[in-house]
Amino acid sequence: MDALVAHVNREMPKTLEDLRGLVRIPSVAAQRRGIAECVRAVTGLLGGAGGRVTTIEQDGASPVVVAEFEGRSPRTLLFYNHYDVQPAEPLEERTAEPFDLTQRDGLLIGRGVADNKGDLVSRVAALRALQAAGGLPCRIKFVVEGEEEIGSVHFGAATRAHADLLRADACIWEYGERDHQERMHLVLGMKGICYLQLEATTARVDLHSSFGALVEGAALRLIWALATFKEQNGRIRIPGHYDRVRPATAAEEAAVRQIPPDVVEGLQRQAGVETLIGGVRGPDAVRQLLLTPTCTVCGVWGGYTLEGSKTVLPKVARAKVDFRLVPDQDPHEVARNVRGHLDAQGFHDVALTVLGAEFPYRTDPADPFVGVVRRAIEDTTTRPVLIYPTSAGTGPMHDIGPVLGVPMVSVGAGYWNARAHAPDENVRMADYRETILLIADVVRRFAEAA
Amino acid sequence: MDALVAHVNREMPKTLEDLRGLVRIPSVAAQRRGIAECVRAVTGLLGGAGGRVTTIEQDGASPVVVAEFEGRSPRTLLFYNHYDVQPAEPLEERTAEPFDLTQRDGLLIGRGVADNKGDLVSRVAALRALQAAGGLPCRIKFVVEGEEEIGSVHFGAATRAHADLLRADACIWEYGERDHQERMHLVLGMKGICYLQLEATTARVDLHSSFGALVEGAALRLIWALATFKEQNGRIRIPGHYDRVRPATAAEEAAVRQIPPDVVEGLQRQAGVETLIGGVRGPDAVRQLLLTPTCTVCGVWGGYTLEGSKTVLPKVARAKVDFRLVPDQDPHEVARNVRGHLDAQGFHDVALTVLGAEFPYRTDPADPFVGVVRRAIEDTTTRPVLIYPTSAGTGPMHDIGPVLGVPMVSVGAGYWNARAHAPDENVRMADYRETILLIADVVRRFAEAA
Repeated sequence: MDALVAHVNREMPKTLEDLRGLVRIPSVAAQRRGIAECVRAVTGLLGGAGGRVTTIEQDGASPVVVAEFEGRSPRTLLFYNHYDVQPAEPLEERTAEPFDLTQRDGLLIGRGVADNKGDLVSRVAALRALQAAGGLPCRIKFVVEGEEEIGSVHFGAATRAHADLLRADACIWEYGERDHQERMHLVLGMKGICYLQLEATTARVDLHSSFGALVEGAALRLIWALATFKEQNGRIRIPGHYDRVRPATAAEEAAVRQIPPDVVEGLQRQAGVETLIGGVRGPDAVRQLLLTPTCTVCGVWGGYTLEGSKTVLPKVARAKVDFRLVPDQDPHEVARNVRGHLDAQGFHDVALTVLGAEFPYRTDPADPFVGVVRRAIEDTTTRPVLIYPTSAGTGPMHDIGPVLGVPMVSVGAGYWNARAHAPDENVRMADYRETILLIADVVRRFAEAA
Repeated sequence: MDALVAHVNREMPKTLEDLRGLVRIPSVAAQRRGIAECVRAVTGLLGGAGGRVTTIEQDGASPVVVAEFEGRSPRTLLFYNHYDVQPAEPLEERTAEPFDLTQRDGLLIGRGVADNKGDLVSRVAALRALQAAGGLPCRIKFVVEGEEEIGSVHFGAATRAHADLLRADACIWEYGERDHQERMHLVLGMKGICYLQLEATTARVDLHSSFGALVEGAALRLIWALATFKEQNGRIRIPGHYDRVRPATAAEEAAVRQIPPDVVEGLQRQAGVETLIGGVRGPDAVRQLLLTPTCTVCGVWGGYTLEGSKTVLPKVARAKVDFRLVPDQDPHEVARNVRGHLDAQGFHDVALTVLGAEFPYRTDPADPFVGVVRRAIEDTTTRPVLIYPTSAGTGPMHDIGPVLGVPMVSVGAGYWNARAHAPDENVRMADYRETILLIADVVRRFAEAA
């Protein structure tokens, strides 16, 4: 690896300039800013490294950038990344400019550095190092979307319509995680999501609360409806909700059992939470976090919410509810089941809007590609590896995995304090260099495993 | 009454100048504005009419102005009014300056014109007309507080400490109501209130909602707690809540039965509400409105409440809840019962703050004073009279009625579109003149009834 390491070291200033160039573009999907400019920059980055770039355009969608690189082996490794970022707000908490790259205290700070421009640039850097050290050992493709932070609403249509263009044998997912104990997580799956907004309306106007003897307020009406969604032990009460849940495989269960419970205990310390839902502890808590569906009221509002008292009977109240899904739950079916549940409970008057729908997906932990990535980590870093058969979070893996029939593993530059989605998003410089070398090693091993 | 009518007509410009002088002072209790200036103006108004004025000062309280007027009969009639007003906001909906008196289309428009400076000035005008037409037939007192719009928090302490100063034989309450059918309502009672704020906290920081498999969000936690407060049929589930409810007397029930159901049907049309709580209709709806305790969620908020979706597990959620009370419920006991109920249901973690507490009160509809006021209305106006043994709303009647042992009747200048608490608060000029003559007649009849 010496020629490769030397190249990575020598080229680091250029790599950081590439990263700075992307970070400076405020490609905030939620605000529809900087998208066209970022597409040009990503096209330049991938084309400049020798890729044949195609841009997939869809009506009303941010373009998806695809790049293909030839290599010695006919096998193809696909990288999934996204060029959109979260909003920079709240600005008052930042200590560095969000849309610039700040180097400080061994950190690279800037919006998108961890999620997900940093990973994209690190992968291109690895590819260039491989090219300089004898050429690409296999074919490489990139698919880089621009709507990941707003639910990848058009991504599935793009991958399905262009499956031939994306055809590959395995996929490296967008991000990486080094935890508090400096272990590397390998994430093989994602939960799905059904994100709903509910709205209860009980009158045409707000009324004085003295009429509460005759007219029900929208707030309590909505509260009654929401209270029926879940038991306090976490069991979701929507009929049919568990019908499609497929039992975790023995390999998934085994992988979960190997994750030490300290990952949950750390969360409890950070959040100041003593008792977990259902009273679970230790390995059971890890299992519950990763393998069970959830129902969370993310927001609720209605009526008077300022200082002091106002005696008002609110005409309307609203809530945002997310359901995290496990294979093989279907987010659209979940929404239909919630509608049916509301109707069955007498809440015909509570309106429902689907704000987001993504399917769950998991790669088999026994897939040889997982071993390839694991050995690359063990050889290029000193880090222990934890196999996560799924993240507790959500991402559009389902738009690639089943479409292309490929195993998917997420590994990248992030760490436990990367602050993705928060002010001062960052990666550690040492991790960034480690990730470039690791990705290069993954590519070599993947090519050799053919 | 001819000399009196002539005096009222002649003095109307001065009366309206008195009213304009008060309306111009923005004595907004919630914003602690204009209080001292308004106390001086009220003192000047009552002193200028020949009253002996005393100002009751309490630490941290807006002063209570008391005025005593001598008269031929030893009997004393007390008027309760307040000089504080609601905030002028929302300003964008007004068509007239809130803190000035606008005369337009037969209306007097300005903040406090209906609630309650207009009634105060109309009563002083009636008193001056009586003085000009032969002198006051009985003793008159005024008690004018400055915190009615923020729950009369210090008023009860003032009346209890100065009961001798306020001693009277009957009391005219602050306001009046002419309904859509131009009937005059005589209101003999008020519900009490216990206004609570609840706060659920489930973590030290907001978490990503993917942790919803292990940590409950504060929003759903609060929703579960609130959902236990009331059945959908209106029955309040707080243990002990009905223990002190004394059955309505035969006279109260009879009075309620004489209120035509159109008062409720009008509310339904205005609010666009087809079905009332418990499915009540007609006289049963009137009875339920006036004689039953209520529980209303006036506001609820927590987590993400803006456009689109954000996957957050909120650490804190809050709600405002009011309980309207009937005799002999005790608002402090209600708060203790709610605390006990939360604890019994396992919601020790939901914090409770009392934001307002007022006791209920009712005057016996059979009290002779009610007949005195009723006959005055029937003789000075052509209006049908509806006796309300209680309002569905709340006011500090309990701070005077049981303290002085007097019957209390509310009658005054307001009407169905007076917009108290809203922009363009107003009374009709014709009602205003009618009210001055009516109050003068009430005083004469009260003196004669001795």
